[in-house]
Amino acid sequence: MNLPADKKKISIVCFSGDFDKMVAAFTIATGAAATNREVTMFFTFWGLNALKKKKGRVATGNSIMARVFNFLMGGLNNLPLSRLNFFGASPILMTGMMKKHNVATLPELVEAAHALGIRIVACEMAMHILEVGKSDMIEEVQDVAGVATFLNESENAHIIFI
Amino acid sequence: MNLPADKKKISIVCFSGDFDKMVAAFTIATGAAATNREVTMFFTFWGLNALKKKKGRVATGNSIMARVFNFLMGGLNNLPLSRLNFFGASPILMTGMMKKHNVATLPELVEAAHALGIRIVACEMAMHILEVGKSDMIEEVQDVAGVATFLNESENAHIIFI
Amino acid sequence: MNLPADKKKISIVCFSGDFDKMVAAFTIATGAAATNREVTMFFTFWGLNALKKKKGRVATGNSIMARVFNFLMGGLNNLPLSRLNFFGASPILMTGMMKKHNVATLPELVEAAHALGIRIVACEMAMHILEVGKSDMIEEVQDVAGVATFLNESENAHIIFI
Repeated sequence: MNLPADKKKISIVCFSGDFDKMVAAFTIATGAAATNREVTMFFTFWGLNALKKKKGRVATGNSIMARVFNFLMGGLNNLPLSRLNFFGASPILMTGMMKKHNVATLPELVEAAHALGIRIVACEMAMHILEVGKSDMIEEVQDVAGVATFLNESENAHIIFI
Repeated sequence: MNLPADKKKISIVCFSGDFDKMVAAFTIATGAAATNREVTMFFTFWGLNALKKKKGRVATGNSIMARVFNFLMGGLNNLPLSRLNFFGASPILMTGMMKKHNVATLPELVEAAHALGIRIVACEMAMHILEVGKSDMIEEVQDVAGVATFLNESENAHIIFI
Repeated sequence: MNLPADKKKISIVCFSGDFDKMVAAFTIATGAAATNREVTMFFTFWGLNALKKKKGRVATGNSIMARVFNFLMGGLNNLPLSRLNFFGASPILMTGMMKKHNVATLPELVEAAHALGIRIVACEMAMHILEVGKSDMIEEVQDVAGVATFLNESENAHIIFI
């Protein structure tokens, strides 16, 4: 990377696919990028759901197990709240509360992240286990990488696990 | 800030309002402050509940949605365990186990944090979305700030997301 | 510690005992150690379960409360998935998916961590509260320490809370 040495860096491991934690991750990421930091978001495990192309529940993968998991996990619009989820009612209510107060909603935050040049990386191993291919994911995904690559690129960064 | 350059810094994002995670956050925070580190705790989302003035469940906010959320979330004495909560029985049992072994309980840790000069900051955006005002929170809250301010002040700190 | 100053360090607080989060913790840890980093894993609270000697559910501790908690929490082979756990079926399915794709399973990751020289530390306070003794834990546990010791040893490390 050819960055000036004083460029501040933040790397976020997006492990949880919870709606509220994803909002937190993207809020920190976009806030950091807007204040001139270099930001990488590394999506793994449940977090991969936020990167799926199709918005609804789709049974991605070849094996039955992978298909069941991927169907149950859904995509960006099916992320549950980490608490008081009430079978998906709460993320919808929460989105209403965010709109009412002119706070960016989750899809708006994802768009903003892309516009601000935040690097979006999908975890190779998680894709492998859950049988999610690059073609199953949104175009904003710039890289597929393993944990060692992620750590190397985050050496001088704050690493935040969400 | 006029700190000596070698002062060690730790910033904790208290996102989760789970009883056990709050105990962990305050244990790390007070342990760090007691060993001469500068500590900031940034409370956001579910974490805001730990800062609410009234101890019981109170329906704070103007809109029906915010009132329902705030009622359900409760305050410092209603924080659930992240696992095996059993409708609130476990945090009470856990507090008993902590007392039995002379470990500081959660309210004692909050008090200690204040006494040790730990900076307690409430997240502006979360207060806005959940319609929690400064007057709804305990006096120990020193600042209301956004994520950019938090990141700027945490530049040389360990950032821990709990 | 007599490490070369340029040795990269990573410290992971293993707070959650969730199966998926433990896989993430050990994957980051072994990936970091394999690329020549010095890694410490600090196990506290639910995370302690991953260190218990007996593989099944055992009622460790003296008080009834501690015994109930320890029984319910189980050990390394009873860790639940943080979502879609389905009473323990999912971690078993997930292990099948990992094996199928030749990804190291959790017990293999623990073994690899030990072989790679990762330092495994158990949290003194959590052992105290939950009444888990050193003899209840696997031999790979090298140290029992408090949070202040952990922070001191992690001063130049990335601290990741999982």
